[in-house]
Amino acid sequence: MRIVGIDPGYAIVGVGVVEFNNQRFTTINYGAVTTDASESFPSRLKIIYDDICAILDTYKPDALAIEKLYFTTNQKTAIDVAQARGIILLAARQRDIPCYEYTPLQVKQSVVGYGKAIKKQVIDMTTRILKLKNPPKPDDVADALAIAVCHGHTASSPNSLNYLIKG
Amino acid sequence: MRIVGIDPGYAIVGVGVVEFNNQRFTTINYGAVTTDASESFPSRLKIIYDDICAILDTYKPDALAIEKLYFTTNQKTAIDVAQARGIILLAARQRDIPCYEYTPLQVKQSVVGYGKAIKKQVIDMTTRILKLKNPPKPDDVADALAIAVCHGHTASSPNSLNYLIKG
Repeated sequence: MRIVGIDPGYAIVGVGVVEFNNQRFTTINYGAVTTDASESFPSRLKIIYDDICAILDTYKPDALAIEKLYFTTNQKTAIDVAQARGIILLAARQRDIPCYEYTPLQVKQSVVGYGKAIKKQVIDMTTRILKLKNPPKPDDVADALAIAVCHGHTASSPNSLNYLIKG
Repeated sequence: MRIVGIDPGYAIVGVGVVEFNNQRFTTINYGAVTTDASESFPSRLKIIYDDICAILDTYKPDALAIEKLYFTTNQKTAIDVAQARGIILLAARQRDIPCYEYTPLQVKQSVVGYGKAIKKQVIDMTTRILKLKNPPKPDDVADALAIAVCHGHTASSPNSLNYLIKG
């Protein structure tokens, strides 16, 4: 199955596309959708929408895996990330691509085997699992690939429906 | 100028369309986009997107006025409202409709003349200003019309650019 992992944001959206077949990962492509702070917020949303639609149309994934939002002290940022995340779910829904969500803890558990792993451990393990020459940059891209790996691991177990974004 | 006021949400999106010319309001139409909890969240976003696009294409407003999000104790609700609000801003941006945002305090100040007005006062004043026979129901629709009135009042003053959604 082909999985697109997404680390949602409004300045940087990390994107990673992987194949997971017979318990093996193949890395298809990865990168970031970026928007400039000089653009209005609605324009930034439109850039994200257009780019994510193009990525989904190019790679035709079977599933989209995205980070579950949790709240930090910066509520303004959290609201704006949520607004951008809605756009990404819309683009997937318009193409009938099911969306799965995972917390950072679940991603760490799945990729490193330890829910309190530090960021560097997650990036290093993702780099190894996906057989990349170098750790992907920026971190948002590494996070997106880690979420894709997490979904690969989870999708092959019967409890993957627990992570499907429902009502 | 024609203004669409929006009270953002994911179960109920209040929508009010008004004309404001020569300091007088004319009510064009109002209602709510509703989504059912039995649908998946991405499906609810798609329903909101499709309906808001259709409303914008039908009424071709010159401006969209929407409530500024602030955080309540229910963070799950706040995240989901923000995800739906991003969809609405996207639909407006795709049609080059400028988006303005107002806090509940600003709406009350503008409609009732008093920032601490209670909800009933806002609904009553909105009903009078728009010469409606009855208070619009549900409250989300009344709120949407109140935001449209607030933008009408503000847009005729030079400081309306302060409320334009920028970066």
